[in-house]
Amino acid sequence: MIDDEIHPPRRLPEPTLRRLPWYLAFVKLLKGRGEVYVSSTQIAKEINVDSSQVAKDLSFVNISGKTRVGYEIETLIAVLEDFLGFTIQHKAFLFGVGSLGGALLQDSGLKQYGLEIIAGFDIRQELSGALINGIPVFHISQFPARQKKLNATIGVITVPVDQAQAVTDHIVAEGIKALWNFTPFRIRVPHGVVVQNTSLYAHLAVMFNRLSLINHRK
Amino acid sequence: MIDDEIHPPRRLPEPTLRRLPWYLAFVKLLKGRGEVYVSSTQIAKEINVDSSQVAKDLSFVNISGKTRVGYEIETLIAVLEDFLGFTIQHKAFLFGVGSLGGALLQDSGLKQYGLEIIAGFDIRQELSGALINGIPVFHISQFPARQKKLNATIGVITVPVDQAQAVTDHIVAEGIKALWNFTPFRIRVPHGVVVQNTSLYAHLAVMFNRLSLINHRK
Repeated sequence: MIDDEIHPPRRLPEPTLRRLPWYLAFVKLLKGRGEVYVSSTQIAKEINVDSSQVAKDLSFVNISGKTRVGYEIETLIAVLEDFLGFTIQHKAFLFGVGSLGGALLQDSGLKQYGLEIIAGFDIRQELSGALINGIPVFHISQFPARQKKLNATIGVITVPVDQAQAVTDHIVAEGIKALWNFTPFRIRVPHGVVVQNTSLYAHLAVMFNRLSLINHRK
Repeated sequence: MIDDEIHPPRRLPEPTLRRLPWYLAFVKLLKGRGEVYVSSTQIAKEINVDSSQVAKDLSFVNISGKTRVGYEIETLIAVLEDFLGFTIQHKAFLFGVGSLGGALLQDSGLKQYGLEIIAGFDIRQELSGALINGIPVFHISQFPARQKKLNATIGVITVPVDQAQAVTDHIVAEGIKALWNFTPFRIRVPHGVVVQNTSLYAHLAVMFNRLSLINHRK
């Protein structure tokens, strides 16, 4: 059952927000297999999370299960996707069309999860006018005018480290509200602006360290 | 000073491993500005981490600072890059040359951080023989033979969710030792195999939730 009351958005614990997409991926898989109901125990077993944790995480979402049969899969998917913000297209600009930036423009999958990158900006004149995966690239000097017209809320930061803070300051001043920072630099923002750090290199560092331990053990 | 003794690799706390690349990025920035020494207080201030935390994190690395002047930047960079595994090329195969997988093949930046993707594999026959950013793509049936020849240690998983576990089982059986899992599915591996989960969608979920809170407050 979907709870019909309108709830104000709540600040969810980050670990919960990170686990909910795992549950979503799993129940979508079940749906593909023709299943109709899923219990939190079943999710817990598959995802390798404590079943009381699953129940607690799902208690943040406006859905309740039926005794014995569990959650209706179709409803759970709809509610989770909506709750996680994947059903709204959040307009984003990407800054720094280098190797990683260009790669992210290529990834149409982000759109299915609510992130619509509508333009890329770069300091290099020669990139201006390019189209990558249908997304136009402009010189950074055109950003304020584009922002006035298109009013993006999210800035994806894929510039070199030494540009990260300057670009952040510039785009926040023009009204960008959330920054998805792929640089390994810790950008600073005014209060009320959201920063999500995704450092692929930090993840590599963790993986390499764990790997060196196995290799050493042999 | 670099500590000359050979140390066996140690299992570092994940938060430390995630912070070290931030320090590295910052000291590289200082080097670019012509600086020669850096103190842990200076790093702490810029990175927004407690200075005792910085000192503790750096104590895992085989480097010691000089009283008053701090760490020699050039040495710190070399030691950190080496310590984090960024100076060795780790050979990797990528599985699932879809939107995200193709994008990662485009990102030459990973190589600078020690990850060398040497081939992509996909189930779709029509992709076989393609070259993306100079990296060859093969049909998945060719993986065992290529693995015997090239002996990759890392598998990058960018297949659809419903294929994640089957691909994992297949490649681990052929000797892949570490999996960089970009799917939102929680793959299971035998003991001794490393898994690093990087879910871009989970990061989006966190960012969208934080953003909805600001929008609501207004």
